[in-house]
Amino acid sequence: MNGNSFGRLFQIATFGESHGEAMGVTVSGCPAGLELSEEDVQADLDRRKPGQSMITTSRGEPDAVSIKSGVQDGYTTGTPIGMVIENKDARSEKYEPFITAPRPSHGDFTYSAKFGTRNWGGGGRSSARETVNWVAAGAIAKKILAREGIELKAHVNQIGDIEAPEVSFEEMLEHSEENEVRCAHPETAEQMRERIDEYQQEGDSIGGSIYFEARGVPRGLGAPRFDGVESRLGQAMMSVPASTAFEFGLGREAREYTGKDRNDEWEFDSDGDPVPTENDHGGLQGGITTGEPIYGEVTLHAPTSIPKTQTTVDWETGEEKEEKVIGRHDPVLPPRGVPVVEAMLALTLVDFMLLSGRVNPDRADGQVGEYDTDYHPSSPRNE
Amino acid sequence: MNGNSFGRLFQIATFGESHGEAMGVTVSGCPAGLELSEEDVQADLDRRKPGQSMITTSRGEPDAVSIKSGVQDGYTTGTPIGMVIENKDARSEKYEPFITAPRPSHGDFTYSAKFGTRNWGGGGRSSARETVNWVAAGAIAKKILAREGIELKAHVNQIGDIEAPEVSFEEMLEHSEENEVRCAHPETAEQMRERIDEYQQEGDSIGGSIYFEARGVPRGLGAPRFDGVESRLGQAMMSVPASTAFEFGLGREAREYTGKDRNDEWEFDSDGDPVPTENDHGGLQGGITTGEPIYGEVTLHAPTSIPKTQTTVDWETGEEKEEKVIGRHDPVLPPRGVPVVEAMLALTLVDFMLLSGRVNPDRADGQVGEYDTDYHPSSPRNE
Amino acid sequence: MNGNSFGRLFQIATFGESHGEAMGVTVSGCPAGLELSEEDVQADLDRRKPGQSMITTSRGEPDAVSIKSGVQDGYTTGTPIGMVIENKDARSEKYEPFITAPRPSHGDFTYSAKFGTRNWGGGGRSSARETVNWVAAGAIAKKILAREGIELKAHVNQIGDIEAPEVSFEEMLEHSEENEVRCAHPETAEQMRERIDEYQQEGDSIGGSIYFEARGVPRGLGAPRFDGVESRLGQAMMSVPASTAFEFGLGREAREYTGKDRNDEWEFDSDGDPVPTENDHGGLQGGITTGEPIYGEVTLHAPTSIPKTQTTVDWETGEEKEEKVIGRHDPVLPPRGVPVVEAMLALTLVDFMLLSGRVNPDRADGQVGEYDTDYHPSSPRNE
Amino acid sequence: MNGNSFGRLFQIATFGESHGEAMGVTVSGCPAGLELSEEDVQADLDRRKPGQSMITTSRGEPDAVSIKSGVQDGYTTGTPIGMVIENKDARSEKYEPFITAPRPSHGDFTYSAKFGTRNWGGGGRSSARETVNWVAAGAIAKKILAREGIELKAHVNQIGDIEAPEVSFEEMLEHSEENEVRCAHPETAEQMRERIDEYQQEGDSIGGSIYFEARGVPRGLGAPRFDGVESRLGQAMMSVPASTAFEFGLGREAREYTGKDRNDEWEFDSDGDPVPTENDHGGLQGGITTGEPIYGEVTLHAPTSIPKTQTTVDWETGEEKEEKVIGRHDPVLPPRGVPVVEAMLALTLVDFMLLSGRVNPDRADGQVGEYDTDYHPSSPRNE
Repeated sequence: MNGNSFGRLFQIATFGESHGEAMGVTVSGCPAGLELSEEDVQADLDRRKPGQSMITTSRGEPDAVSIKSGVQDGYTTGTPIGMVIENKDARSEKYEPFITAPRPSHGDFTYSAKFGTRNWGGGGRSSARETVNWVAAGAIAKKILAREGIELKAHVNQIGDIEAPEVSFEEMLEHSEENEVRCAHPETAEQMRERIDEYQQEGDSIGGSIYFEARGVPRGLGAPRFDGVESRLGQAMMSVPASTAFEFGLGREAREYTGKDRNDEWEFDSDGDPVPTENDHGGLQGGITTGEPIYGEVTLHAPTSIPKTQTTVDWETGEEKEEKVIGRHDPVLPPRGVPVVEAMLALTLVDFMLLSGRVNPDRADGQVGEYDTDYHPSSPRNE
Repeated sequence: MNGNSFGRLFQIATFGESHGEAMGVTVSGCPAGLELSEEDVQADLDRRKPGQSMITTSRGEPDAVSIKSGVQDGYTTGTPIGMVIENKDARSEKYEPFITAPRPSHGDFTYSAKFGTRNWGGGGRSSARETVNWVAAGAIAKKILAREGIELKAHVNQIGDIEAPEVSFEEMLEHSEENEVRCAHPETAEQMRERIDEYQQEGDSIGGSIYFEARGVPRGLGAPRFDGVESRLGQAMMSVPASTAFEFGLGREAREYTGKDRNDEWEFDSDGDPVPTENDHGGLQGGITTGEPIYGEVTLHAPTSIPKTQTTVDWETGEEKEEKVIGRHDPVLPPRGVPVVEAMLALTLVDFMLLSGRVNPDRADGQVGEYDTDYHPSSPRNE
Repeated sequence: MNGNSFGRLFQIATFGESHGEAMGVTVSGCPAGLELSEEDVQADLDRRKPGQSMITTSRGEPDAVSIKSGVQDGYTTGTPIGMVIENKDARSEKYEPFITAPRPSHGDFTYSAKFGTRNWGGGGRSSARETVNWVAAGAIAKKILAREGIELKAHVNQIGDIEAPEVSFEEMLEHSEENEVRCAHPETAEQMRERIDEYQQEGDSIGGSIYFEARGVPRGLGAPRFDGVESRLGQAMMSVPASTAFEFGLGREAREYTGKDRNDEWEFDSDGDPVPTENDHGGLQGGITTGEPIYGEVTLHAPTSIPKTQTTVDWETGEEKEEKVIGRHDPVLPPRGVPVVEAMLALTLVDFMLLSGRVNPDRADGQVGEYDTDYHPSSPRNE
Repeated sequence: MNGNSFGRLFQIATFGESHGEAMGVTVSGCPAGLELSEEDVQADLDRRKPGQSMITTSRGEPDAVSIKSGVQDGYTTGTPIGMVIENKDARSEKYEPFITAPRPSHGDFTYSAKFGTRNWGGGGRSSARETVNWVAAGAIAKKILAREGIELKAHVNQIGDIEAPEVSFEEMLEHSEENEVRCAHPETAEQMRERIDEYQQEGDSIGGSIYFEARGVPRGLGAPRFDGVESRLGQAMMSVPASTAFEFGLGREAREYTGKDRNDEWEFDSDGDPVPTENDHGGLQGGITTGEPIYGEVTLHAPTSIPKTQTTVDWETGEEKEEKVIGRHDPVLPPRGVPVVEAMLALTLVDFMLLSGRVNPDRADGQVGEYDTDYHPSSPRNE
């Protein structure tokens, strides 16, 4: 309702500003009995964190997560999981010139227009730093999905004019984390890296896109009309900072396909179940899963913070001024966006798994009504 | 939650199947004191209804709306507006062959996989007939927005490989309803019409896209993070039947822009307020409006119902079969999709207007706490 | 959000005014495969409808429900069930004197203060006529609960100063529908009836209360903190027109009990499961069910419409005036309130059953992921 | 949805267990520009905290709040306010005997039945310790309400069989915080205190009740049917730990009143506005405020933790056992419940103020669309 929550049964509520004291996320609706440690969450945070390479901002954030509640003796208890990540390396002074002189294409003006004020350090609440909360929560969602046989992965499939050829899901799993760009096609990754360097040296930045895919999603998941899987993915992915387009299946290309070309006919699989002969439908028909892989793309525009002189106006002084955004920034967003897109995909899918009853909302093992199961290891007498 | 509601303060809840007795929508959260008649709603329904031309299905539905509640003496009362539209021309028998043999790329299989059963006549709940409800509710949303100086319009900007040149908002207002294709560029409309005819004659169908734009949206509308205007538009537009891509601003093209090229610098407008020099940002920064026009595109894939022989399987008999989908169908979706996209845009924006307090949730005139205003015309003693 | 919806997974959205064209309710989240007919719903509507006896209003409403969607060949399809009940016997002219002169203790002034206007005929949206929608939806909820072994019943346990002795659940089932007062204790029912007659003859009305009980509710249902069963029942029951108090377990009496007296100790049941030795806790501990019966009471104040002269003011003329509310009204609310309380109890519990995964949100038979089950009887080829 | 959130526009999401690392609450929807410090919040936390006197638990918790986000230079920014309160004095070892042997009338068994496990130290998530989060959020709600001229207060009006006489709102403001019992009638407070001592010496505990009142609530607040003020208060107050009854206006007594006696007639006030001659309706008619004080009562049962030997069963050993609950506990709940009830009342009312547009959801000063107001003091250049 207020922009800080996502999900229905598996729901996150977040807080935090880029240069505030801490980021935080409360995860409600995680079933009890899931093995969970801070390390599980940290692994994904480390993939998102700044300072991983030359093509990510040099801000020095350890992004160490602290789980405050909802976990006991290594297992979730079904009650809300509060996580806090402290901000350690905020340097707000560089943002002072922009307090009343909005940076081009940031949220500076709009936040001030909405609230009359804003937290101006590092972009405050509008900063992509918020996604640390999403990735933390997404790590939990992924663990639940993995138990259900659902795998998901994203990789960078375009940077500027360089587009990766189609890669298999296996290639994504194998190669996308091997290079700084997070492109699963190694040769393209190198070209992308070079292109990024060029823009970075010019003091400019460049756009790109992320391809995502989920496998093992059971058929029949999702809901009619406004809560179709693509509807909720649409909300999820358009929330990713800098996203300007969401596509699934053939995406934008579908406008040039005929019905005959796009339609996926039906055959029987080895179990005698109907399966589509192709997957131009991206795993979704009528908002509901067919059991085929769900795939799509998210376009992220170029980072707006660039060390070039740009024109803005200062509403306090009433004067135009030329400013360079100094700060520490990424020259391109998709590489660090990969874990963010994965997190939003995971959060969306786990919510549908709970909503369909496939994952029991109370218990990871689904044994409802029992009051002492194997995942009740908390008695010190057990030790 | 269950897929049948949209919106938060201005909320619709819908029911109905393509060949059921009636379609219906309950609109909650419409402020009191809005002048409203069935004719207001009917005007938009007539733009969406079947049988308008050779390029729309020949199903004969008058789509006559009946307002059952929430309006008194021509003014809304603030209480829920129940609307019912009866289905008059359902012919289900043609769908019998497909009960257990799913049509390619429809929601037949997925609805049955989810619910174990489905309403099979005309696609049941998964049919685009549902959008009659959205258009009815959207007509009310548009009336509220118009009072606030917000105008919105959509038109068809691509059919297959034929793309319209950029048109102005004024051209959209003037020309888009002049031709059957609903393209605001008359020459392109003719070409589109010819291309559609070609596909129709081949027994095929074709995809396309709709461009939408809203003007007069005040700055500072929307909410951070998960409830950004683009996030909610993402959900709204991906709910439109057959949509496979949602873009705003530069959309998918943003991936090839540099930061320098895409960034919109700031200048002062004649009131001394900061305004962006350009609108590559599509009216939205950080999920919140800048006051510039909001624009974007929705891609709709080709209609899946085509009178060509296609292969499917019958899960009852266990046999493959070749079938033609006979029925009465559109060869292309965007022309009738235009009022649907407008409706979803209007529903999204009016909800944000209420959420921001700019439109008072109780009263169209904003005079809270008064118990007898000019829009209390219901006394028969007034007559 | 807007006051017209209740429930989360099993959700109703209602519309309608007392003297409007029709009442309507859309039920979302009813699983597919439930046998359902208009007769099932009508049975409960008949218990609520006016004109049942001398102690109910003489308004002549057949309250005939029409199911517009969501049911096919006698089974639910999982998609929203739209129901409409037409208003047939509205006589608004008697309400004209009160358009600008609020009746004492009705919603007349408050609705006008909120919305600036109101539907004034018969109380409009604030009328208890709305509960026809709740009872219709509640009938569906009860059917689902019955399949799960959950039974529920309410009866009138107090009218004015006449209080029924404690009765067993079996007595409630057996006797409460035998008399016009709906009190399960026949002798008390007679006394209550006499007392009501006395007040009615004096042109006055009287308050009372309803006791409710649910049996067979599985242990472990409900949710911590704000969504405890009693929290949601609190909202549900305080929504019942004229309710001024909600109690569960010992209710208000608990204030005079010591911990020792109220605490329910634990023993083993015949299955070796812990069960409380008593049920002073009303089936709920920490917001979650123990498996013991849930019970409580709802107090309903006396009908505010009485044929006595009362003082009001006319805000149009600025004058005080003495008025009698003529209309057709109940002298006491609990007898017709019994099915309403049962409906709200059923709606609350079925939502928790869905939220806990005990009732599958997609399918009444819980066979997720199958695309042709026994409750797919809709093929005409089956006939 | 998952029990950890309350409110719609002004929404809180909480986490934490009694003996966990920390409690936390995220407040979303607080308008920007509200002056707010940790001291503002701490004042109410100190009223709720343990160890205030002999009649509260001796657990030594400073309950020091830390605001992590949403406040800048002493003013709220409109973005979520994350607050964390660390647990400092948890001693879990005394709870070990109860891990598999539920304490009578606690949430031990039901939490384990729902989740299969539970955080057992100090009652875990089911502990009243959670209310520290509510009181922290409520303090912010109260600040907003105070700006709007809405005052609210609660006091203890009954302990066991000792009931306070009716006191005025002014007496509540003046006296209720003067004594340990928080009863606004000093002589009764002393009697209550003695009675509590008696029960405490016997190793027993006792129930009681809290009266609450809100003044200055504008007329026309609330929403029809399921979102009436009493409906939402019903949910709010039944969420208070140990509450077994919620009443407003005449409450349970209304069952014995006739319509004539309870009805409040109308007269004109000095402004020429209709006002009720009395307030038997408790400030609410049809779910909406009349402008008269809202008042009611919440009954809290006796604390279930008592140092008496009670019988329970151990589901691990299969044996009955006699146990004393040792721990550190309150002999009576209402004194510390007063700030909790006030918090829930404030949270409910502020949400309605936002929902009605009376408090602008974006800005405390209501100046929408401006991008630099007086409450933008964050520039270091101002210093």
